[in-house]
Amino acid sequence: METNQERLWDSLMEMAKIGAIPKGGSGRVALTHDDKLGRELFIKWCEDENLACKVDKIGNIFATRQGKNPKLLPIMMGSHLDTQPRGGKFDGVYGVLGALEVIRTLNDHQIETKHPIEIAVWTNEEGARFAPAMLGSAVYTGELSLEEALATCDKAGISVKDALEEIGFLGNEPLNRPVDSYFELHIEQGPILELNQKQIGVVTGGQGFYWLEASITGASRHAGTTPMEVRQDPMMAFSELLLNLEKKLSAIPDGLFTIGELYIDNPSHNTSVGHMTFSIDLRNPDLTNLEAMKEMVNSELNRVASKREVEVKLTVKGLTTPTPFDEVCVNLVEQATLKCGYPYLRMISGAGHDAVNMAKHYPAAMIFNPCADGISHNEAESITPEDGKAGADVLLHTILLRDSTLVE
Amino acid sequence: METNQERLWDSLMEMAKIGAIPKGGSGRVALTHDDKLGRELFIKWCEDENLACKVDKIGNIFATRQGKNPKLLPIMMGSHLDTQPRGGKFDGVYGVLGALEVIRTLNDHQIETKHPIEIAVWTNEEGARFAPAMLGSAVYTGELSLEEALATCDKAGISVKDALEEIGFLGNEPLNRPVDSYFELHIEQGPILELNQKQIGVVTGGQGFYWLEASITGASRHAGTTPMEVRQDPMMAFSELLLNLEKKLSAIPDGLFTIGELYIDNPSHNTSVGHMTFSIDLRNPDLTNLEAMKEMVNSELNRVASKREVEVKLTVKGLTTPTPFDEVCVNLVEQATLKCGYPYLRMISGAGHDAVNMAKHYPAAMIFNPCADGISHNEAESITPEDGKAGADVLLHTILLRDSTLVE
Repeated sequence: METNQERLWDSLMEMAKIGAIPKGGSGRVALTHDDKLGRELFIKWCEDENLACKVDKIGNIFATRQGKNPKLLPIMMGSHLDTQPRGGKFDGVYGVLGALEVIRTLNDHQIETKHPIEIAVWTNEEGARFAPAMLGSAVYTGELSLEEALATCDKAGISVKDALEEIGFLGNEPLNRPVDSYFELHIEQGPILELNQKQIGVVTGGQGFYWLEASITGASRHAGTTPMEVRQDPMMAFSELLLNLEKKLSAIPDGLFTIGELYIDNPSHNTSVGHMTFSIDLRNPDLTNLEAMKEMVNSELNRVASKREVEVKLTVKGLTTPTPFDEVCVNLVEQATLKCGYPYLRMISGAGHDAVNMAKHYPAAMIFNPCADGISHNEAESITPEDGKAGADVLLHTILLRDSTLVE
Repeated sequence: METNQERLWDSLMEMAKIGAIPKGGSGRVALTHDDKLGRELFIKWCEDENLACKVDKIGNIFATRQGKNPKLLPIMMGSHLDTQPRGGKFDGVYGVLGALEVIRTLNDHQIETKHPIEIAVWTNEEGARFAPAMLGSAVYTGELSLEEALATCDKAGISVKDALEEIGFLGNEPLNRPVDSYFELHIEQGPILELNQKQIGVVTGGQGFYWLEASITGASRHAGTTPMEVRQDPMMAFSELLLNLEKKLSAIPDGLFTIGELYIDNPSHNTSVGHMTFSIDLRNPDLTNLEAMKEMVNSELNRVASKREVEVKLTVKGLTTPTPFDEVCVNLVEQATLKCGYPYLRMISGAGHDAVNMAKHYPAAMIFNPCADGISHNEAESITPEDGKAGADVLLHTILLRDSTLVE
C-alpha cells in the first residue's frame, strides 16, 4: 500500500497559498488571520475524510478516524501549520498533511484499524510570535501551565488567549488526554540525509542543549598608543577560545557548538575592546557528553583568561536535557522504512519538535525527510515530491505496524 | 633655569574647574560655553604676562611675546584646551598651560629672546563635537579648507562657523602664517614611559595608520542540525585570522593592530553567523612596514577564506601616512632633556596631534610626559606635579636652544 504522491503535493501547494510570500515561502504566523485560514482549510479536508475535529484549551486541533475497538487509545500523528514570518512551505505543514495523506490512503483502501487514528495540529510550534516555541504540545503534556501559556503576550501586547478567541480556536477539549503513541513526520532542517544520500531519517531522539552566555573583560585602550605586549584584549582571548574549543570539542562524539551572538561595549575602531559578551550554543544527544562540553567551555575560558590576563564569566541561560525516543516506536519506524525499501539513516533530531514534548510522556518517534541543502526557516526551503511521498509511506506503514503489533 | 611646579599645577587645577565633571575630569567640548570660558581664562592669563592675543579665521588663538629681532619668525608652542565630553584634566591643556609656564618663567627671569615666542591654542583638536579631529591645525596648515571646516555641523546641525560666532571666537587673523618652528608638550596617552620609568618622551614623529574594514560571509545555519564539518562559519575564520595576525604581525617592528568593532547580521544564539563585518586598525611609524602589515592582513584573510570556505572582503576606510618630525627640532628636545637631566626615551607618537599637521609644513617636534597607567580620554587621566614641571622645563630649554642656535 502506498500514499498518493500527487495528492499530497497538491495539498502542500494549496496550503502554501495561505499567507504566501513573494519568494515562494509562507508567512502563516501562529494565531494570525492566515493561521486561522490554514486551520480551517485543514479541518475542511479532514471533514471531507469523515474525521471528527475537536479543539482543546490551548487551540490544538485533533482530527480522529474511529477504530474497531473503542477501548484502545488513539495512535496519534501530527505536527504544526504555523510558520516563521518568512518561512517555507514544508516545516510542520508536511507532517500535518503527510498525516492527512495517510488517512486518505486508509480511506482509499477502506482499511479499518483497531485503534482510533488521530492527527494533531499543535499551536504555535515556531515561537515566532509567542514564546516559548512548541507551546501547544508543552501545554498538552503539562510541561507548561495552561494559565501561563494563555497569558503570554506578543510584542503588541495581545495574549495567546485573546488571539485564540479572535481566530475562533479557543476550544474546550481536555489536555493530557492519554494516547497510545505519537509519530511525527518532519523535514530534517539539516543537511545530513542529503549528504548521505538517504531518503528517510529514523529519528532516535531529541538532543540536549545548553544555551550559555560568556563575557570577557579586558582593558579598553587607545589603538595607537598601547604596545601589543601590555594589552589585555578580549578579542584575542575570544579568538583563542574558539580555536581551542574547535579542537577539544571535536573529541566529544556528536557535539555541536555555535557562537551566534557577540556584542562589544562602546565599539570604536581606534580603541581596543574593554568588555564583550557572546552566546555559546552547545548540543549533544547524550547528557554526559553535553555536561562534558560545558565543562570544557568553562575550563578553556578560564585558561585563556589566565593566559591573556582578562576576566571571564559564564552564565547558563538555558538547558534542555536530551530526550531519547521510545525504542519500540523507533524500531517500528525502522521496520516500516525497510518494508517500503527506502534508504535510511538512524539519526537524532538536532532541532526541537513537538515530538520531543510528547516523548517525555508518551511513546513517540519521528520520521525525517531530506530538505535541499539543509535550509529551513527560509523561503528557499524545499523538498521533492518523491521524498514527500516516501515519508508519508513510512508514516502509513508505521501506523499500520503499531496498530497490528500491539497486544490488545 | 627652571619652571615653577606649583604655579603650573595651580593653573592646571584652575582651568579644570571650567566644565568640571563629577569623577574629577573636565567636559570642555569644543566651541561650547565652557570652551569659551576656558579660552577667556587663558587669554586673561596671557594678558597678565603682557602677551598680545589674536584669533584667526578658524578660532585658533595665538598669544605672542615679542622678540629682539622683529624680522625673525616666531617660535611656536601650543596644544588645545578642548576636551572629550568625559575627558581628563591634562590632554591638551597641559601643553597650553606648560607653554604659558614657559612664558611666565621667561618673564620671571626677564629673558629677552631673539625670536618672538608664541603660544597656539588650536580649535577642536578632539573632534568630539565636530569632525575631523585636529580641525584648527588642519585649517591653519592648509590640510583642510577653511570653507569646508566652517560648514561642518555637529549632531544638532550647528556649524563650526555659527558656534565660533556664538562664543565670540570667529577671528580675522590670516591662516598659513609662516613660523620658525613648532613644539608641543603633551601627555603620552599610552603606558610606554611609565613602563620604562622615564620622565620625558622625545617624540620622533607621528606613526602611520590604516583603518580597514573587513567582512566575512559564510552560511547561516541552524545550530542544532548542521554538523560541524559542513559549516562555513565566519566566527571561526575570524578567530583563526586574529591568532595568525598576532603571530605574523609581531615580526614587523613597532606594529600595532586592533579589532575594536565587530557586527553580526541578524545575531541569534541558535543560528551560526551568516555575515559579519569588523574594523582593523593598523599602525606603524614606517610606511613600508605599514604597507607590509596591510598586505599581511589581506593575505591572511584570503588564506582563512580558502581554508574555511567563506568569502571575504577588505576595504580601506582611511590612511594616514607616517609623519617624521624635523631632525633638528627632535635633537633640540633631546639636548634640552639632557641639560635638565631627566631620564628620557626617544619614541614615536601613537595618537594624532596638532603637531603632526604642523610637522607637514614647518619644523616641529613633541615632548611627552608619562600619564598614569596610560589612561587618557577618561576622567581618571592623571600626571604628577613633578612630571608636569619636568615637561615644562624641557619645553623651556628647547625654546631657548632653538632661539640661541639659529643663524640669523
